[in-house]
Amino acid sequence: MAEQSTLDAFEDIPITDLSALREALLALRDHEIVAVLGRTDPRRRAVLFRLLPKDRAVAVFEDLDPGLAGDVLGALRDERVGQLIEDLDPDDRVLLFDELPANVAKKLLLGLSPEEHELTATLLGYAIGSIGRRMTPEYIKVLATMTAGEAIEHVRRAGKSAETVYYLPVAGSTRIVVGAVELRDLLMAEPDATVADLMHEPLLISVNEPEEDAARKVVDADLIATAVVDSESRLVGLLTFDDAASILASAEAEDAARTGGSEPLRQPYLSARLIAVVRSRVVWLFVLVAASTLTVAVQDTFSATLEQSLALALFIPMLIGAGGNIGSQAATTITRSLALGDVRPRDILRVLFRELRVGLMLGGTLGLIGFVPAMLLVGADIALVLLLTVASIGTLAAAVGGAIPLGARALRVDPAIVSAPFISTFVDATGLVVYFLIAKAVLGI
Amino acid sequence: MAEQSTLDAFEDIPITDLSALREALLALRDHEIVAVLGRTDPRRRAVLFRLLPKDRAVAVFEDLDPGLAGDVLGALRDERVGQLIEDLDPDDRVLLFDELPANVAKKLLLGLSPEEHELTATLLGYAIGSIGRRMTPEYIKVLATMTAGEAIEHVRRAGKSAETVYYLPVAGSTRIVVGAVELRDLLMAEPDATVADLMHEPLLISVNEPEEDAARKVVDADLIATAVVDSESRLVGLLTFDDAASILASAEAEDAARTGGSEPLRQPYLSARLIAVVRSRVVWLFVLVAASTLTVAVQDTFSATLEQSLALALFIPMLIGAGGNIGSQAATTITRSLALGDVRPRDILRVLFRELRVGLMLGGTLGLIGFVPAMLLVGADIALVLLLTVASIGTLAAAVGGAIPLGARALRVDPAIVSAPFISTFVDATGLVVYFLIAKAVLGI
Repeated sequence: MAEQSTLDAFEDIPITDLSALREALLALRDHEIVAVLGRTDPRRRAVLFRLLPKDRAVAVFEDLDPGLAGDVLGALRDERVGQLIEDLDPDDRVLLFDELPANVAKKLLLGLSPEEHELTATLLGYAIGSIGRRMTPEYIKVLATMTAGEAIEHVRRAGKSAETVYYLPVAGSTRIVVGAVELRDLLMAEPDATVADLMHEPLLISVNEPEEDAARKVVDADLIATAVVDSESRLVGLLTFDDAASILASAEAEDAARTGGSEPLRQPYLSARLIAVVRSRVVWLFVLVAASTLTVAVQDTFSATLEQSLALALFIPMLIGAGGNIGSQAATTITRSLALGDVRPRDILRVLFRELRVGLMLGGTLGLIGFVPAMLLVGADIALVLLLTVASIGTLAAAVGGAIPLGARALRVDPAIVSAPFISTFVDATGLVVYFLIAKAVLGI
Repeated sequence: MAEQSTLDAFEDIPITDLSALREALLALRDHEIVAVLGRTDPRRRAVLFRLLPKDRAVAVFEDLDPGLAGDVLGALRDERVGQLIEDLDPDDRVLLFDELPANVAKKLLLGLSPEEHELTATLLGYAIGSIGRRMTPEYIKVLATMTAGEAIEHVRRAGKSAETVYYLPVAGSTRIVVGAVELRDLLMAEPDATVADLMHEPLLISVNEPEEDAARKVVDADLIATAVVDSESRLVGLLTFDDAASILASAEAEDAARTGGSEPLRQPYLSARLIAVVRSRVVWLFVLVAASTLTVAVQDTFSATLEQSLALALFIPMLIGAGGNIGSQAATTITRSLALGDVRPRDILRVLFRELRVGLMLGGTLGLIGFVPAMLLVGADIALVLLLTVASIGTLAAAVGGAIPLGARALRVDPAIVSAPFISTFVDATGLVVYFLIAKAVLGI
């Protein structure tokens, strides 16, 4: 709470009082500065960032959301930009370049020192979306024939620019990975024990693997880092646990946004321009509303039925609401399970069979509970229509909600896109058809 | 892909072929075994777990979802349970105890060795939901007066049972934390440099802080671990980055489930009993459907209007669908921003003002685009009703969707509970009222 109020107080300092701003800014930690920049308008953000000393500017910049980083860059003078880009870690630099317009990225790449240029160009050579672009090429390897003492000495000498020194792939001059050893195990061992005795079989990640799959493996295996290798098992980089966690966090942000029917903003909400917020929502909204014109067509088709029994109209929003909710529940559960790897496309029949039963149980219970109140309100025949409809819609919605994310994954479409809102809309239209067909059959109209 | 098919092949081995099962099981890594156990039925799961040698059983057990861990425990003999519990890390043990019935947890606690009993009882003394229950009490501290060489020697001697040796709080016999130093910095320094020269100011987390807030700080600050202190700044434990990441992952799983209108399952989908899946959804479904009976009441109130212009009925599902989608988009965005700390309850007016404009822009655009098609279909007067309604509902839905999660957080209710489905249901009823009122005014009925 003390911390919260420091941040609040900070926001009350006027933009014109540069010395007070600077002093307050330097009292904050890097991640607090990141939070401050994410809550402020572009003009104040540019002023604040320019107040940061060089080394802290790099650390803060590396932690900004990609959308925001591009924004900040645009507000700096060219020589400052060049220095900042030079000081970034190669993997953070590639992440930024992927965000910038191609010609800007190219210009920045050409401005780098030869050494950093090479590291960056190597990463940029891997396919977009592959872990090759997100790994660090700055690792230390040790030899299997070294003693623990020698390996530690090697780390002391070579470790300065490495991203981590705690996880050490074991590889010779061919760079073929034969093992991995943790610094901790080297330190705890007798100094003359060999690396070969201390190393364990490494989890290897292919450099072409999709970034999210690779990150999930590292996090699931709870490893401090993992070796990334090319198709001949040669070491090309390391993926650290914290980079893996941050890849998964972006993927989850994307899933969460799409589950709610919008595209991810890629920057903190309060820092985004209004038009960016609108843009992140407008496409999906239009798709969903366009799809829902189906409901107009369905009602138009059955307008004779509706005219004969206007009481049917009373329950339409409630019925399609129930269907939409049951479908969303199933879709969210399965989308999440897919992301976690708990469920795979080959499980589609198992999932379908489970969801059919779950949907029937949910819809059936709901229908039975509502039967008596509905009977008192509109009579036994319509109450029966409602019971049959809600049980049918429930079964249908759960099955569709469970199966569609799996189908999407099998077709290599992001399951989150076709989840909750998509399924609600689909269930709306089919639910209406079911309702009117049951009504016609039961009421004999 | 190779890995995937190993797992698939594993699932084809019959449960009766114990020696084949054991051999295939031992060829898997710990996290792969966790995945296998999460996809199988309770009987096979119990058999597989019993086939694991003791040390691997502990490693696998620590990684199981809490719901599943309780299940596995129930299938073991008492002496095996006692050994397993004794071998767990204290923080994992407390996580498990929180999941088990109180009397079972108590019995297991009493069965521990004196040393493990004390570590566990200390953690259990902190409030449920506080980081005190999730930190590790097994840390190493160093003295500010030590040289780098002495500190490394101290780590070598004392580090065996510590959860991490890479992050070392600096504290004397009073346990008041005066700094923190990374093992990497000790190793890179001259051996006679003092810890006081190498240490930096630590990020301190209070032992009573809510676990999610504490975890978010560690992950945001990208620290390998963080010292946890009591109210007098005395060291009581460490929170490691991977434990913090796993706390956030559970919180996100909970948010994702609730955003879809169900409670989290707390175990992999395929391993859960059907009734557990139904139970996770039924309560919210009933709440949402009960709330949606409001729509019946609204339509009943305006039934005279509906009778006079049956064409109005055609558009009801589409209109409330659009309102629900706009509300869900806003709610999901704000719920997520709250979880990330990008938005705070004090920002409610800023959020409200943004969402009012975003909603008006979305609803207005949608209405204008639909105006001509609607005019051709049902005439200019109803098309005007639709335009005005969708603009109003859009504004209302976005504002409500943005404000309600903030209100919930201010009232200490989980924002995810009241997000998407709750807001759709609310918007359904109010949207209908808006629709009928506009229709009455424009059509003069």
